[in-house]
Amino acid sequence: MKTIFKIEDASIVNQMLDEAEYGTLALCADNKPYSLPINFMYLDDVVYFHGAKRGRKIDILKVNTFTSFSVVESYSLIQSYFSSSDGLACPATQFFKSVIIDGQIEFVEDYDEKVTALTTLMKKHQPEGEYRPLSEDVYTKAVNATTLYKLVPKETSAKFKFGQNLTAERFDMIVEHLRARGSEKDLATVQQMLVLKKSYNI
Amino acid sequence: MKTIFKIEDASIVNQMLDEAEYGTLALCADNKPYSLPINFMYLDDVVYFHGAKRGRKIDILKVNTFTSFSVVESYSLIQSYFSSSDGLACPATQFFKSVIIDGQIEFVEDYDEKVTALTTLMKKHQPEGEYRPLSEDVYTKAVNATTLYKLVPKETSAKFKFGQNLTAERFDMIVEHLRARGSEKDLATVQQMLVLKKSYNI
Repeated sequence: MKTIFKIEDASIVNQMLDEAEYGTLALCADNKPYSLPINFMYLDDVVYFHGAKRGRKIDILKVNTFTSFSVVESYSLIQSYFSSSDGLACPATQFFKSVIIDGQIEFVEDYDEKVTALTTLMKKHQPEGEYRPLSEDVYTKAVNATTLYKLVPKETSAKFKFGQNLTAERFDMIVEHLRARGSEKDLATVQQMLVLKKSYNI
Repeated sequence: MKTIFKIEDASIVNQMLDEAEYGTLALCADNKPYSLPINFMYLDDVVYFHGAKRGRKIDILKVNTFTSFSVVESYSLIQSYFSSSDGLACPATQFFKSVIIDGQIEFVEDYDEKVTALTTLMKKHQPEGEYRPLSEDVYTKAVNATTLYKLVPKETSAKFKFGQNLTAERFDMIVEHLRARGSEKDLATVQQMLVLKKSYNI
């Protein structure tokens, strides 16, 4: 993938992580990878997620804390004829945003840090409130029964692919085709294309 | 996660894989995991995907072919008060479908197998056609420049979480709340809940 797709602006990456509902966790043990989707919360540049006291995830993390965590937001499929009139299949692609965070996991044992992280998760997925604060004693047993993990990023790499590598002519052709197809996703894709083009003066 | 969420019916799993636009590949080398999103095609019970001749993905696969591949379709966030009136945050969750395929990767060198797999990818993402067949000589250079990978599943595990573990009362409360919120995703979630409930006589 060309470097042109790389996003270096941390605030753009953080915003995507704040909004994403889930990501995919990649772990490994004995050089065999294991992947699974998780809900997560991003707080103070750290990824928190939780789990049960038993299972394959915790078994692996007890022996190997190295982790790669991916978050993807997929945008429109770009048909081959959207950007080319030569009839070749090659230009067919999909636009997307992706962030990959590599680092190591820590087990969070501190009760108050667990409550803060779980409160962030609730605020993210249930911003309207309507639940008793997690600091109340009624949650003590549940908080203690939850394993809380903290992924401290060592390397974060973000790629947003929205046709930044294309000539103005092909870029405009895609915009026109997406507007004509006109789904909600297509219009969101056009918006992202134009924002990125403007930000980077492409 | 309770066993009740497991899906054993291969046709249901295959349909999800046929429809999914992308998945997340987890690889590892030196016991350090690496994850990345990929478009893929599912053909004859095998996952095909492609890539360039250079990069981290191929570097890792040359030394370790063990792979875990996740495909997720996320459905509605279920607010805590959708299924409970006790004011606790604990019932907050998200409904989803996920498939995790563990296995080993093979490099596909056979030209005709590459063309067949890439044709399947085009049919999946561009069912309307409108491109020259990939068997034409005009593609020879491009096909040779593409690395094609084949993930042969060793273990496939599918989980669909749509409230199958809940009492009828809580299940119905969620259906009611989702219908009232009424987004496209919420209505699709209700549909999945009812289909699953019916299939499994829950």
